[in-house]
Amino acid sequence: PPTKLPRVGTTIFSVMSQLATEHRAVNLGQGFPDFAVPPRLVEELDRAMRAGHNQYPPMTGIPALRRAIAAKTERCYGWRPDADAEVTVTSGASEAIFDAVHAVVRAGEEVIVLDPCYDCYEPAIELAGATAVHVPLGAPGGGPASFAPDWDRVRATITPRTRMLMINSPHNPSGATLGAGDMAAIAGLLAGTDIVLLADEVYEHIVFDGARHETVLRYPELRERAFVVSSFGKTYHCTGWKLGYCIAPPALSAEFRKVHQYNTFCSFAPAQHAFAAMIDAEPEHYERLGTFYEAKRDRFRAQLLTTKLQPLPVPGGYFQLVDYSAVSDLDDLAFCRWLTVEHGVAAIPLSPFYRTPPAGQRLARLCFAKNEATLDAAIERLQKL
Amino acid sequence: PPTKLPRVGTTIFSVMSQLATEHRAVNLGQGFPDFAVPPRLVEELDRAMRAGHNQYPPMTGIPALRRAIAAKTERCYGWRPDADAEVTVTSGASEAIFDAVHAVVRAGEEVIVLDPCYDCYEPAIELAGATAVHVPLGAPGGGPASFAPDWDRVRATITPRTRMLMINSPHNPSGATLGAGDMAAIAGLLAGTDIVLLADEVYEHIVFDGARHETVLRYPELRERAFVVSSFGKTYHCTGWKLGYCIAPPALSAEFRKVHQYNTFCSFAPAQHAFAAMIDAEPEHYERLGTFYEAKRDRFRAQLLTTKLQPLPVPGGYFQLVDYSAVSDLDDLAFCRWLTVEHGVAAIPLSPFYRTPPAGQRLARLCFAKNEATLDAAIERLQKL
Ligand SMILES: CSCCC(=O)C(=O)O
Ligand SMILES: CSCCC(=O)C(=O)O
Repeated sequence: PPTKLPRVGTTIFSVMSQLATEHRAVNLGQGFPDFAVPPRLVEELDRAMRAGHNQYPPMTGIPALRRAIAAKTERCYGWRPDADAEVTVTSGASEAIFDAVHAVVRAGEEVIVLDPCYDCYEPAIELAGATAVHVPLGAPGGGPASFAPDWDRVRATITPRTRMLMINSPHNPSGATLGAGDMAAIAGLLAGTDIVLLADEVYEHIVFDGARHETVLRYPELRERAFVVSSFGKTYHCTGWKLGYCIAPPALSAEFRKVHQYNTFCSFAPAQHAFAAMIDAEPEHYERLGTFYEAKRDRFRAQLLTTKLQPLPVPGGYFQLVDYSAVSDLDDLAFCRWLTVEHGVAAIPLSPFYRTPPAGQRLARLCFAKNEATLDAAIERLQKL
Repeated sequence: PPTKLPRVGTTIFSVMSQLATEHRAVNLGQGFPDFAVPPRLVEELDRAMRAGHNQYPPMTGIPALRRAIAAKTERCYGWRPDADAEVTVTSGASEAIFDAVHAVVRAGEEVIVLDPCYDCYEPAIELAGATAVHVPLGAPGGGPASFAPDWDRVRATITPRTRMLMINSPHNPSGATLGAGDMAAIAGLLAGTDIVLLADEVYEHIVFDGARHETVLRYPELRERAFVVSSFGKTYHCTGWKLGYCIAPPALSAEFRKVHQYNTFCSFAPAQHAFAAMIDAEPEHYERLGTFYEAKRDRFRAQLLTTKLQPLPVPGGYFQLVDYSAVSDLDDLAFCRWLTVEHGVAAIPLSPFYRTPPAGQRLARLCFAKNEATLDAAIERLQKL
């Protein structure tokens, strides 16, 4: 029988990481830090494991972690979700996105996604038997590489079958952030519909230039119809620990948990104890994260200006888009392969983030969640372009 | 909008564990050991974490772990899967089952499950838009509490829409095991069809009385069409670590990975390193597991014979079914609640494992993966019935 997911190949992140390894390239492709997990987290995980927290934790996550997430949400955003009814711990943000889609989206329905978008959105939608409706980012008059949403265009794609709208801020791959105006526009779009919002906010603590993260959780009229997904991987430099969570109102959380319960059931117990202790003990960790990455962004941008790659503005996240049109006329997939193989720097092309990549776009994504030595080594190679 | 999973409530395992906690009952309900993880595993996990293995591992699992699983499969069953193309690491067996179903089962198709069966099977099938077709276990003439499959009855339920058959050996909740005759019968049933087999073998190393585990992997004509799912949770006393795997031929593994890639993507990295080291270093661990649990089974059974509960035979796994009809005429849900609340021993009723529970069946499941002190305390209470 034919495949259920004909458009799915190996994800571009794995492809480029493997190519990077084969060619000993500096890997600025797949998004993961090359510096250490906070030492307290390692100690706490070790302690939890030795204390015997090695059997099934509760399906929704251990209460101490759900409470720590609720308290942290209140500290950061002025609103506290109910730790019992509204917070669910998952095996990473990707499981949370998968579960949220499967919890409410039915066969034959439509989900609006804004292109470019992370590559796990559409397969989750297709597996639910639904259709992803792709709306390109880029507001009218926003310039050639604008990633601002055009909400009128989104409104025009809403049909009676639209069941969900997926947003992502700070945005992967562009770093664009949504503002208060976007939140108001979304509220206007969704009012009077039964469309559910899915907000992927995994880079929530990485916003720059004094801006605040405009989370859906600040807006009652949005959060009452939203799954808000985040993850510890980006905030605590441990993408391989795969612990995330979903905040949603009780009725949506109940549906979410039905899927989670029969998908992974629960997540690695010792890490749940470690994060419960860490969040409470070091709130300054994520408060400092923006400053930490802003310094990296600024340094890397200054370095890129010594190359022929042109860096785009980065309001949030840990990715730097560069326009490579002064260097090459290759399409972005070919350019990123060439850059990896011939110049020893792995990057991520933008095409895989689109259903229909914009013709002639010459952009690549570089991850700056790296030590200075790694970034310096990459820059030295990029200067030779 | 109405729920997508109207029949799904909170899983019986969580319900009974919570009731056990509230009433300070000895918890022989939810299946998890109350003894320690092997010390080497804790040390290896700690080492991996401190060595910096905290970023995304490969989506399919780290190569060392996949190789260790392949080698262990060969040692135990005389056949070696291809570690690259046929082994995929997952966040527990439950994710593997969910992914396998979503990889191949389409909306409108049918999946045959044998009742009683583990409660995650049907929701996964329903989320894929398919229908679970329930065939009761119990061969003709097998007696009132027989859990032997009636393969003629299974054959009679096959239709052109049948896409998958799910089996589980050793079986939860009964402990029944499938034999070589069952394997031959299944091969006969499936020959000439494109029905995929899903074998849940999480208790593979817990078989008693000198029997060998009849894994699907021993049989070429079965494994060429099967997803074989196992987990480290049962084998290494760490149900809260949520690491499992799926062995399937390359074409099925490719489809499986498309789902896994966009569901959890990958699993807790340090534990993967820990198991890779552990499997290679202590093969005798799982070789001894049968003996270890057989002694527990025998001791617990002898103790149960001093109560009014009648223990059924247990060929494998770590659950003991008991017939409580000499004690109570309550249905099994009511009996297990009463046993927990009034007598301080939590057990699992069998009804939630059935689509249509057999009328008048008076069976409860007790987990004997417990320290002697725990089992002794339970027996002391059960003697008062
Ligand atoms: C799951 S691998 C991809 C990691 C990531 O978030 C990215 O590189 O965009
Ligand atoms: C996921 S909780 C259930 C554990 C288990 O396998 C059982 O008790 O049958």
